[in-house]
Amino acid sequence: MLHDSRLDDSNLVRAARQQPVTHTPVWFMRQAGRSLPEYRRVREGIPMLESCRRPELVAEITLQPVRRHGVDAAIFFSDIVVPLAAVGVDLDIKPGVGPVVAEPFRTRADLDRLPELTPEHVSYVTEAVQILTRELGDTPLIGFAGAPFTLASYLVEGGPSKNHEHTKALMYGDPQLWHDLCARLAQISGAFLRVQASAGASAVQLFDSWVGALPRADYERFVQEHSAAALAAVDDLSVPKIHFGVGTSELLPAMGAAGADVVGVDFRISLTDALARLGGRYSVQGNLDPALLFAPWEALEAKVREIVEQGRQAPGHIFNLGHGVLPETDPDVLTRVTALVHELSAR
Amino acid sequence: MLHDSRLDDSNLVRAARQQPVTHTPVWFMRQAGRSLPEYRRVREGIPMLESCRRPELVAEITLQPVRRHGVDAAIFFSDIVVPLAAVGVDLDIKPGVGPVVAEPFRTRADLDRLPELTPEHVSYVTEAVQILTRELGDTPLIGFAGAPFTLASYLVEGGPSKNHEHTKALMYGDPQLWHDLCARLAQISGAFLRVQASAGASAVQLFDSWVGALPRADYERFVQEHSAAALAAVDDLSVPKIHFGVGTSELLPAMGAAGADVVGVDFRISLTDALARLGGRYSVQGNLDPALLFAPWEALEAKVREIVEQGRQAPGHIFNLGHGVLPETDPDVLTRVTALVHELSAR
Repeated sequence: MLHDSRLDDSNLVRAARQQPVTHTPVWFMRQAGRSLPEYRRVREGIPMLESCRRPELVAEITLQPVRRHGVDAAIFFSDIVVPLAAVGVDLDIKPGVGPVVAEPFRTRADLDRLPELTPEHVSYVTEAVQILTRELGDTPLIGFAGAPFTLASYLVEGGPSKNHEHTKALMYGDPQLWHDLCARLAQISGAFLRVQASAGASAVQLFDSWVGALPRADYERFVQEHSAAALAAVDDLSVPKIHFGVGTSELLPAMGAAGADVVGVDFRISLTDALARLGGRYSVQGNLDPALLFAPWEALEAKVREIVEQGRQAPGHIFNLGHGVLPETDPDVLTRVTALVHELSAR
Repeated sequence: MLHDSRLDDSNLVRAARQQPVTHTPVWFMRQAGRSLPEYRRVREGIPMLESCRRPELVAEITLQPVRRHGVDAAIFFSDIVVPLAAVGVDLDIKPGVGPVVAEPFRTRADLDRLPELTPEHVSYVTEAVQILTRELGDTPLIGFAGAPFTLASYLVEGGPSKNHEHTKALMYGDPQLWHDLCARLAQISGAFLRVQASAGASAVQLFDSWVGALPRADYERFVQEHSAAALAAVDDLSVPKIHFGVGTSELLPAMGAAGADVVGVDFRISLTDALARLGGRYSVQGNLDPALLFAPWEALEAKVREIVEQGRQAPGHIFNLGHGVLPETDPDVLTRVTALVHELSAR
């Protein structure tokens, strides 16, 4: 029954599986969020973490950009630290700052603060996904989770970090503790994806926002196996898996090899160059620079055309940004880009 | 006479010119700065911009890391916005924030606020370099300037920016204005390098801190010619030219082709991979992750050994970090790394 709610025939799932599509599917990272006035309205007075725990509100926020832009997928509204808070980590998401962890993780004893995540920890997620799969009709829902490296960085630094110096000091200085920490995070991350896919999400995306801070050899040594474990948690649910990071042009093949069907590409490398590096083995997602949404339409249109064109060379292409929608973006531009991609790619 | 003050036989200059060295030369980006207690002492109560305009103070700060660490080069203490302030742009460097421009540049009329830089605008720089070449003895001085893209980003955004959305909107949306702006910045940047090289600097480095935010094709279309013009300003002074940016693994060959002798490599790509991409045509500088300086010595030592080893495959290698020294770095670790590189590479 659950399987029936998945939209295997949607363009999103078909593109991820390298099957023919009727047009290139489009969605935007952070499409559900601060760029929309209707989002700011429903979030008013409700702290971020709290808003992720109210199923009706999560469903409404997730639906808003689908209604407004006509995108080909909904992305589940949550935050990568939600599962960490769910297992008991003392943290908050501060406006204008991001996740702040009360006591940073630095020693082996800190592992005790990371019990396994069970579906019971996040029953509000199951509930929200169930509402959504009912409401979304033909539009697939993408479940999401943060990847172990990025989650570890938040825990070890105690918040967002530019240089990840404590994280790297731990990773290079105490590899055994690092691997034990990441193994726990992979369980949490994988279980969070699994909850969403089990409740009806049609695809999942694993976000490794910060992993571009590592060179390839260190990614392979310290990170890849844990991201692979997180993705493997949904292997038997037959949902396509998207894997994305920022500044990861050197890591693309390794991120694909972690078990992805679709490799997300940021805007710092062309889709053509990314495809060459990936050896044609994966579908790709991307990669419009979100800053381009602030440029005059002619300049933006030229870039969109270029990306759709380059995407034709891929085994499968999901149009997206190369990073999240910036808060000051004019939402009408996103609607217009969606229509343009559909028009350019209709077959 | 001026030429005599340049240290063509120093290991730094020889490595840049692909000539044999007695050991791999070492210096650290931001070695003159906040990680040193003696720096914090002499800067006390003196605003950043003001401190860049006092020749004796500039010389003292530039000399401090040479005395302390025994590095193979001094880097001229200044800030990339100093030449902009010198030609009259209303800006300040705010502690904990960075350069803040009173009125951001957005229109053609703003070009009037960017007159050409002449040596008279920065006589304090000439004076400081003259003091330094006298005091430094056998240690070469590296002159430095910010590259047009990075300077443009500060001017257009009005300060440091994560996403460079206004800069990119201008670049993609009004290419002619963009090119005119960057041509002016190239003159300023090139003239600033020329002042330092004319006064006795033995090498120059052009910093393009933010240019990693662009894909290669756009770098080639919007940036490369302007960085090339800045570097060409010192062509007749026969000083080697180092060109560095952050997150630029995709841009390395294009940055070399802008007229560099040495391509700076950040820590996100191994020297071996960078050398392959550069086709053996340039000396390289780099690329220890500054976060590694926070790791236990054994982990740090292993990385330093790896980088020195990989550097042996280069036509010339200058050991450096892959980004600037972080303020909280223990300076004793930098001294120890310097000695280790010297020991490992002595021939």
